[in-house]
Amino acid sequence: MSATSVPQAAPAPLVMAAPTDAPDDAFHVFDTTLRDGAQREGINLTVADKLTIARHLDDFGVGFIEGGWPGANPRDTEFFRRAREEITFRHARLVAFGATRKPGVRAADDPQVRALLDAQAPVVTLVAKSHDRHVELALRTTLEENLAMVRDTVSFLRENGRRVFVDCEHFFDGHRANREYATQVVRAAHEAGADVVVLCDTNGGMLPGQVEEVVRAVHADTGARLGIHAQDDTGCAVANTLAAVDGGATHVQCTANGYGERVGNANLFPVVAALELKYGRRVLPEGRLAEMTRISHAIAEVVNLTPSTHQPYVGLSAFAHKAGLHASAIKVDPDLYQHIDPERVGNTMRMLVSDMAGRASIELKGKELGVDLGGDRELVGRVVERVKERELRGYTYEAADASFELLLRAEIEGRARRYYRVESWRAIAEDRPDGTHANEATVKLWAKGERIVATAEGNGPVNALDRALRVALERIYPQLAGIKLTDYKVRILEGNLGTGSITRVLVSSSDETGEWSTVGVGENVIAASWQALDDAYAYGLRRAGVEPQE
Amino acid sequence: MSATSVPQAAPAPLVMAAPTDAPDDAFHVFDTTLRDGAQREGINLTVADKLTIARHLDDFGVGFIEGGWPGANPRDTEFFRRAREEITFRHARLVAFGATRKPGVRAADDPQVRALLDAQAPVVTLVAKSHDRHVELALRTTLEENLAMVRDTVSFLRENGRRVFVDCEHFFDGHRANREYATQVVRAAHEAGADVVVLCDTNGGMLPGQVEEVVRAVHADTGARLGIHAQDDTGCAVANTLAAVDGGATHVQCTANGYGERVGNANLFPVVAALELKYGRRVLPEGRLAEMTRISHAIAEVVNLTPSTHQPYVGLSAFAHKAGLHASAIKVDPDLYQHIDPERVGNTMRMLVSDMAGRASIELKGKELGVDLGGDRELVGRVVERVKERELRGYTYEAADASFELLLRAEIEGRARRYYRVESWRAIAEDRPDGTHANEATVKLWAKGERIVATAEGNGPVNALDRALRVALERIYPQLAGIKLTDYKVRILEGNLGTGSITRVLVSSSDETGEWSTVGVGENVIAASWQALDDAYAYGLRRAGVEPQE
Repeated sequence: MSATSVPQAAPAPLVMAAPTDAPDDAFHVFDTTLRDGAQREGINLTVADKLTIARHLDDFGVGFIEGGWPGANPRDTEFFRRAREEITFRHARLVAFGATRKPGVRAADDPQVRALLDAQAPVVTLVAKSHDRHVELALRTTLEENLAMVRDTVSFLRENGRRVFVDCEHFFDGHRANREYATQVVRAAHEAGADVVVLCDTNGGMLPGQVEEVVRAVHADTGARLGIHAQDDTGCAVANTLAAVDGGATHVQCTANGYGERVGNANLFPVVAALELKYGRRVLPEGRLAEMTRISHAIAEVVNLTPSTHQPYVGLSAFAHKAGLHASAIKVDPDLYQHIDPERVGNTMRMLVSDMAGRASIELKGKELGVDLGGDRELVGRVVERVKERELRGYTYEAADASFELLLRAEIEGRARRYYRVESWRAIAEDRPDGTHANEATVKLWAKGERIVATAEGNGPVNALDRALRVALERIYPQLAGIKLTDYKVRILEGNLGTGSITRVLVSSSDETGEWSTVGVGENVIAASWQALDDAYAYGLRRAGVEPQE
Repeated sequence: MSATSVPQAAPAPLVMAAPTDAPDDAFHVFDTTLRDGAQREGINLTVADKLTIARHLDDFGVGFIEGGWPGANPRDTEFFRRAREEITFRHARLVAFGATRKPGVRAADDPQVRALLDAQAPVVTLVAKSHDRHVELALRTTLEENLAMVRDTVSFLRENGRRVFVDCEHFFDGHRANREYATQVVRAAHEAGADVVVLCDTNGGMLPGQVEEVVRAVHADTGARLGIHAQDDTGCAVANTLAAVDGGATHVQCTANGYGERVGNANLFPVVAALELKYGRRVLPEGRLAEMTRISHAIAEVVNLTPSTHQPYVGLSAFAHKAGLHASAIKVDPDLYQHIDPERVGNTMRMLVSDMAGRASIELKGKELGVDLGGDRELVGRVVERVKERELRGYTYEAADASFELLLRAEIEGRARRYYRVESWRAIAEDRPDGTHANEATVKLWAKGERIVATAEGNGPVNALDRALRVALERIYPQLAGIKLTDYKVRILEGNLGTGSITRVLVSSSDETGEWSTVGVGENVIAASWQALDDAYAYGLRRAGVEPQE
């Protein structure tokens, strides 16, 4: 069957540039957070979320980012278009996910296969059935036709210049049920030109010994380059992934923080850490492993899930030691009580439950912000206390660098220097008898010695408040017009009190030259939002070179 | 050194009765939730908590419950006294934990060792150093004296009728550093009469292959019965525990839900499930595995941690299916997409309703809710369309079963049957000139033909709205008093429009007999919260048997 027997629209050309600093091809770290990870219950990613996560994954240094299933839903199609236009990848290649052609049609005629080309990603992962019962019951076709579907689709994509990986779904169960057929599927994919054939434990029921044995056998039977895709239903996904590597796999599919359907997927971070630190195998670009903790937490923020405090390597508790027995020994030699130096993964040892921010990290952060605190122990101590006290009340500075810098500068300068002084504000949300909504806010403030009262409407009370603040200040600080709010996230803390909980708001803002994030905490969403907005404008005006003057 | 060379108070007699239905001694499931699990950051157990957890663990059918370190703190001492008096164990034997005698004293003269006898537990676990550097740096004694400490303490406890297990701390690191010495410690414990020598990966840095190899080697070198105690710092504690069993260990130390220091310990539940369901080895009394999900959640409640939704086997999401592809195949044969039947561990399959889902998942979901939609293709089609249309607008039903059921019933009954009709509402949030906050809401509604206006204050505008609604309705629907809001989550969608984004609110509610979740979406947090509250009360009143009547 040839792709040229009927006239076709020319496939979309590949316009995406290769990443500038791609890792060695000998071992693949393949991330599927944006595709399989999004199957986790409670995760619902917007295109903007997916772009942000792709940037974080590229920053971390994975070799491949599976972005979604173009054509299957409009969101994924749009993701590939915008990723192409908006992101310059340094390390990663973008991967489009899709299925082998339908039974009984040519690959070139299957719209789902063509959508994979239209996504213009340089790599395509094709899911293929490899378990005989699944072919017959779920796919409702013959075993022979399924092999043809694999061969045709791989060949068609290869002819169109794509690199192809094939995910053999339910491989391990299939290999147990019908070893001969499962092996034939691998051979078909391999011979048609797939670079890697990925053995998937789709139902997640395997244990490491079984995985290693099967990978070894399939490698011996086919000679194909093999990958592993493990689900965590037995709590062994990380170990299963490493067992596959022991058995000869050189391609590991994982998700950030182990997000994924049911229990989840193999967690990218402990897999990569084990490969680098326990196997001594370089799988990330130089220096990226030390970014692991930060990136894990940043991705959790984007998907709006609390970062797991007990996640291996990157959790807040991962290197936390209860004081007492261990304390004196740790002073003698921390290696006695830690399996690795936490700094290798960007985490820190903590000796006390309350010790959320150590001196060293404050100093490092200061340095990052261009403020050398090394000489002033008393100042650093004051900042540590201040951060601890505020984190106890629900603030978080990990995702709010700008608020942290304002806090730091207030300590250095002895007071918070602001641009205006607020007398009062009020926000009203109303659902009227005629069915219309109204949202209105009023602010009263002093700026440069002048008292200003402004009112504005918005599509919600926070939006109205934001607009009223801008109306009040636009004449005195015209620079505010260049500051945009780009993201707004709300999290309810201690959420077991019904609507009477503490609220934390994170706001991202941008101007022409960059982005910054601020945090606000309060007993309700309006008060918390106000704080975060207030910080956002204070930081933005400072960036714009405006001198504070109340 | 003899225990009779100096007159001593007679050791406390063993008054504890043997459990009535103890598991076979050939394989030990040993739980240390109450001792090592309590080291988890954020866990702080009272004696009453410990007694309750011990009852749950005995109910589950573990063979041994390590209750704490008697003598080390008054709480643990009291626990052993009360457990003896208050609990009749059916399956488990209680274990006291302690250390080998101090250097240079007789075991009989070491108050810490005597406290172990006073606890009157039939079994004692002794922690011993087995890593040469730890002996020298942390214990500050000679390698020879450490061996004598092991021998003497084991012998003394055996002479006093106790069964003894020895935990070799830092064993795997010690075996790598000085294999000869680590092996000598095992031999010393074994020869002195310890029933089991437990190899501990105290720092948690091991991987399964290493664990299996070391266990096998030690078994060959010493002939001792071996156990395993794994920490989860590499994310492999479950796999490491099973690897030790593969290497010949017949005693596994675990904690409920994997609680423990730093990342945690090997999780009891997936270890036991793997042994029973994957290895085909009976390690619990008949019928107890099916209690696993309930017991996991009950223990989480006692330690006051939210049960992990993504825990293998027992998590709420562990058998939740989201992808539409899967749903149609699950209708054919659920075993195609599940590694085990969830009922074997007391869990249930759940279909998540989302825009990835099609007709099949809607039908399965209807069945779950007790509504058979199988016969009505047109109705199912309408519901699918309705769900898709609403999910496009930002709704999510996978975390809002109650809102989905209301939607489903509205389609079946041809209209939404409500309990009241809202004319208008208004919420005001204010930051006053004197620095105080005010949050006030007013609702105007009709219920059972009556027009009601009510106003209330709250700690935020949503809380005020909730209270005003309850004030308005409390006379007409007194059942509302039994409905509590238990959780409240806010998510901003398409969060790239500044504060002008769409807001989604999820509310969890409960009454005396159960919990339910509802969703609201709007252009602001107040409007979205109002919807979610409205659904929460409609569903709660329906549960309470109240007939809808506007």
